[in-house]
Amino acid sequence: MITRHDSYEGYKTNSEISDPPCVIFLKEDRNYSKSKACANWHDDLELQLCSKGSGYIIINGEKYAFKSGDIAVINSDFIHYTGSDEAISFYSVIIDSAFCRAADIDCSSIRFDMFPNDGLISEITDDILKIYYSDHTVCKKAKLQMSVLKLLITLRERHTVSQNTEFKLGMGFEQVKAAVEFIRANYNQRLTLDMIAKNALTDKYRLSHCFKAFTGLTIFQYINDYRCEVAKSLIRNGLMINEAAAQCGFNNASFFTRTFKRYTGKFPSDYKKNS
Amino acid sequence: MITRHDSYEGYKTNSEISDPPCVIFLKEDRNYSKSKACANWHDDLELQLCSKGSGYIIINGEKYAFKSGDIAVINSDFIHYTGSDEAISFYSVIIDSAFCRAADIDCSSIRFDMFPNDGLISEITDDILKIYYSDHTVCKKAKLQMSVLKLLITLRERHTVSQNTEFKLGMGFEQVKAAVEFIRANYNQRLTLDMIAKNALTDKYRLSHCFKAFTGLTIFQYINDYRCEVAKSLIRNGLMINEAAAQCGFNNASFFTRTFKRYTGKFPSDYKKNS
Repeated sequence: MITRHDSYEGYKTNSEISDPPCVIFLKEDRNYSKSKACANWHDDLELQLCSKGSGYIIINGEKYAFKSGDIAVINSDFIHYTGSDEAISFYSVIIDSAFCRAADIDCSSIRFDMFPNDGLISEITDDILKIYYSDHTVCKKAKLQMSVLKLLITLRERHTVSQNTEFKLGMGFEQVKAAVEFIRANYNQRLTLDMIAKNALTDKYRLSHCFKAFTGLTIFQYINDYRCEVAKSLIRNGLMINEAAAQCGFNNASFFTRTFKRYTGKFPSDYKKNS
Repeated sequence: MITRHDSYEGYKTNSEISDPPCVIFLKEDRNYSKSKACANWHDDLELQLCSKGSGYIIINGEKYAFKSGDIAVINSDFIHYTGSDEAISFYSVIIDSAFCRAADIDCSSIRFDMFPNDGLISEITDDILKIYYSDHTVCKKAKLQMSVLKLLITLRERHTVSQNTEFKLGMGFEQVKAAVEFIRANYNQRLTLDMIAKNALTDKYRLSHCFKAFTGLTIFQYINDYRCEVAKSLIRNGLMINEAAAQCGFNNASFFTRTFKRYTGKFPSDYKKNS
C-alpha cells in the first residue's frame, strides 16, 4: 500500500518490548503480478534484507535488482516499493528516528549508500533479526539497542554519501506524493485522472508517467488497490459486502467482486466476520 | 563532600555531548589525611576504577581495600566514600539512571556485585574512558551509548546479586542521611551533636558511631569540611574572607583560617578573585 507513514508510533504497538529502537516485518512471497502494492515513504530509516527469491526495489523512481542475501538501505522520505515477477521474501527493519537522533545520528539529514554491500552490515542485520525474534531474556531491549547503534555507527562511518545537504529527488516526486494523498483523502468519491493531476499541480500525462516510475503502479491500479484494502478492513469489521463496496467508491457490485479478487487474491466473502 | 545527588541533571552540564549516557570524573591524589571528604549517595549507578596508588572504599559502612586496577560497582543509593592514607587516583563513572531504564535495566531495583573482578568489565570500562576523553568523531555519542549498554548487559547477566527485593542496608543508614541533610540545611548556624542527633531521631553516641562508619569522618570533621567548601565558593565569587567565614558559621577568623588550611590545603586568600 503506497502511503506516507507519519510516525513510528503506529508500528511500535506490535512489539514485545516498550519503545523498541526498531520494528521488523517479514514480507513473504510478494508477487507484483498479484498487485500487492506497498510503495511508501517515511521519516524513519529502513533496511530491507532479501531472504528468499528475487525481484526488484523501486526507490524514487529508479529500479534496482534485489535478490536473496542483498541488503538495501532506504533513506528517510524516499518512496520505495519492493516487488517481484516471481516470488520474493524480505525482512523490513524500520529504525526509530527518535532513537537515531538521541544517538546524534540524525538520519533525516544524512544519506547513506543504498546498497552498501558490506559484510559487517550483513552480520549486524543478522544479529538484529536474531535478537528481535529469538531473544526473550531480560536484556533483550538493551541488546537490540546495542546492535541498532552498531548498525548506525557502521553506516555513518563507512557509507555516508551526503550530509546536511538537500538531497536531489527525481523530478515528479512531490507530484506523486500529492496524488497519493489526494487519492487517500477522496477514495470514496468518483476520481478522474484530470482531477488528481490538477490537484497535484501537473498534467495527467506527466503524472501518469511519474506515478508508474515511482511506485511501479498505474494510478488506477493504485486507486483500486487502496479501495480494496479499505473494503477488506470494513468487511472484517462486520460491514455487509455491498455496503463496503459503496463506501469505497465502487458503484457496481460485480465489478467490485472481480477487482477485489484480482487485487487481494480472495473473494470479499472470505473476509466476512466469523466466516 | 558527603551529599545526596538528587539528579543526574547537574552532572550533565559538564559534558561535551548533550544527554550523555554517563559522565566521568577523574579524582586525583585523594588523601584522607587532608580530609578531602567525598562520601555521597545517588540514584545513578556508579563505577570506580582505581588508576594509581591504593586506598579504600567505604560502602554503607563497610570498608574495602581499593588499589590500582580494581573496579568497584556502587549500587543505587549506597553511601560511599573513597580515600587513602597515602595517595590514590580513580575514575568515577556515573551512569544516567534514565538511560538504564530506557534499556529496561532499572538499576534502582537491581543490586550488582560490588567487586565483579571480571576481565570483560575492565575491558568495557577502558573503552568507555577512551571514548569519553579521546573520541571527537561524529559517532562519539553513539559509541558511548553502545559501550555503556554493553557494560549494563554484562553486569545484568553475570553480576546480579538481587533484584526487585528491598536491599537490606546497614543499621544507621537513614540516620546518617538525615544528619547530613540537617547539617547542609543549617551549616550557617551554631550546631551541636545533640541537636543533630535529635533531628535524626537517634542519640549522639549512636549517631557518632554510624556517621564515622558510613562516611569515614566524624560529624565535626564533616561540618568543618562542608563549611570550608561553601566558603571557598563564596570567596571565589568575590566575597570578603571575613564575610565568607561569618556566613558559613565561623565566629572566629583565625579558627576559620586554620580550619580552612587544614581541610582544603590552601589559605582562604588563595581563592580570592583575581589573586
